[in-house]
Amino acid sequence: MLVRDTSEFALIAMMTKAFESGSAAALRNQKRLGYRLRQGIGDDASVWDGPAGPMVAATDTMVEGVHFKLESTTWADLGWKAMAVNLSDVAAMGCEPLYSLVTVGLRGDVPTAGLEQACLGMADAGRSYGCVVVGGDTVSSPVLFITIAVAGAPPEGADSPVLSRSAAEAGDVIAVTGNLGCSAGGLEMKSAGLRLPADVSAHLSDAHDRPIPRVRESIELARCGVRAAIDVSDGLIDDLRKLCEASGVGAVLHAERVPTDHYLQAAYRADALELALSGGEDYELLFTAPEEVVRRARREMDTPITVVGEVADRAGGVNVLDGAGRPMKLPSGGWDHFLPGGGGKG
Amino acid sequence: MLVRDTSEFALIAMMTKAFESGSAAALRNQKRLGYRLRQGIGDDASVWDGPAGPMVAATDTMVEGVHFKLESTTWADLGWKAMAVNLSDVAAMGCEPLYSLVTVGLRGDVPTAGLEQACLGMADAGRSYGCVVVGGDTVSSPVLFITIAVAGAPPEGADSPVLSRSAAEAGDVIAVTGNLGCSAGGLEMKSAGLRLPADVSAHLSDAHDRPIPRVRESIELARCGVRAAIDVSDGLIDDLRKLCEASGVGAVLHAERVPTDHYLQAAYRADALELALSGGEDYELLFTAPEEVVRRARREMDTPITVVGEVADRAGGVNVLDGAGRPMKLPSGGWDHFLPGGGGKG
Repeated sequence: MLVRDTSEFALIAMMTKAFESGSAAALRNQKRLGYRLRQGIGDDASVWDGPAGPMVAATDTMVEGVHFKLESTTWADLGWKAMAVNLSDVAAMGCEPLYSLVTVGLRGDVPTAGLEQACLGMADAGRSYGCVVVGGDTVSSPVLFITIAVAGAPPEGADSPVLSRSAAEAGDVIAVTGNLGCSAGGLEMKSAGLRLPADVSAHLSDAHDRPIPRVRESIELARCGVRAAIDVSDGLIDDLRKLCEASGVGAVLHAERVPTDHYLQAAYRADALELALSGGEDYELLFTAPEEVVRRARREMDTPITVVGEVADRAGGVNVLDGAGRPMKLPSGGWDHFLPGGGGKG
Repeated sequence: MLVRDTSEFALIAMMTKAFESGSAAALRNQKRLGYRLRQGIGDDASVWDGPAGPMVAATDTMVEGVHFKLESTTWADLGWKAMAVNLSDVAAMGCEPLYSLVTVGLRGDVPTAGLEQACLGMADAGRSYGCVVVGGDTVSSPVLFITIAVAGAPPEGADSPVLSRSAAEAGDVIAVTGNLGCSAGGLEMKSAGLRLPADVSAHLSDAHDRPIPRVRESIELARCGVRAAIDVSDGLIDDLRKLCEASGVGAVLHAERVPTDHYLQAAYRADALELALSGGEDYELLFTAPEEVVRRARREMDTPITVVGEVADRAGGVNVLDGAGRPMKLPSGGWDHFLPGGGGKG
């Protein structure tokens, strides 16, 4: 059996099992040092409780030809995005990013000026959200890649909650920050060579190339009482499924309530909704909470928050309803990195 | 200017400068959360002081065709080594590894059974030194690579010292744990197709494929009063130069005192010393301390410790003397990942 004949889900399950083999003794031993693992593989970031409260750590990679093409991005944007997607993972946990390690795999024919711009882009994104690059590794590689690992902590140490994928409860409402679909719209515009009005083109490009991690928003949401969140990286429906799976619940998503902006609507009309539902790489926060908590967050926060559905019992699964309340036909499983036709969105 | 026309030193200096641009505000802001950066780019690991004492983080990558060849390693050994080199970075700081994030870049034609063996190898190495895999990223890539990031802490929290490259002082003696050169001897044996007696061949292979990170030794050394250390990854002379550069000192290394074992001597005779001086990937600890501290460590520890030189004033530079006390002619700068002829040892 080869990796390409295996689903990403099956691959990660196999790897997780291998990594966990015999880890119990090490985990017990860590208590001696004052550390206790709270969340291992399976959320946007790992969480451990240290002597001074929780810490989180996450890592995300971008590979040339898989997640980005040098022809259709600038070096500065590449650096920004490589950092931003990691900060978004920390944001999905309600934490502030602190320190990052940057690994670059470099072809010999990469221009040093480009690499410098990429590093400045990473520093720029990091600085914007309080994160500093403190180390890393620089290696020779036949393909360009950037791997970043970020460590973060909740803003008030042991007294702060940490968000998780597994805290959604039946009866919660489901909400998202901002608008969805523009990143996928930007990618589609570039791939298909669509010619759009300059302002639309710039907006969609930016959404794809310079995503905004919702770091501040996640901390405000946690303060308002939100406990369950995931960032929208693989697509709204796919990420909602992951959140429901981790929480042991089902969900009803009202497709027509999913927020899109007028740029996406102008560019894609009827297809805008599909991009918003399945596009991915928006890095908005998808979260669930009791209705009064979401109402409080909407009142207290500047960032738009839209209620898009309700958490239900597990038995019902995840259902997406159209404007008339009818179930929509869905693609079977979202994006897969390894199956034919998968392989990257960027 | 392209990456391949630049020295690794110049590349890292450029990247470090870019990463530091504007980081002062973020660093100030982190104090609000109780975090202070103690060591950024430039040591085996980064160190920050958190509300409950220091933490360290390091990352290291292995790229197919650059750091390893699938023809000459097993999947389990590949996994072991990818983890062990990271644990060694944490050991060089006198800390215990706790949590790791594993990123794998996978070709579609990688066998899942091989990947599973690699993951078991990582888990095995981690478990042996108290470290658990708690997250990571699995991505499609045209070239196989493994990037691991490890977080660790000193064994007694805020009261434990953290070792560093920059703490060597003139008058210290220079010492190493274990024997050197076997890893390079194993690589040379494989590359050149040398046929050696089975026990020699197995020993040299193991030294290259399954390095032993000196985690326990580093903590014992720190307890004995050692403060300056680096792991021998790029070669004894090269790593001694890095330690001296970071500490602002010079050194005298007595080549004939550098410890090699009888397997290496049997296989390479007169060349054994050269492999021990410049070979790299031994993952022994190179450290400096006042003579009485080293004497105490030799008395209290089981692992062999050999004094190989003395720390001197910076002005004298790093000098390697032969058995007659004459300066040895040295290669100019050690190994470089990007210059022609560089590109990997594994």
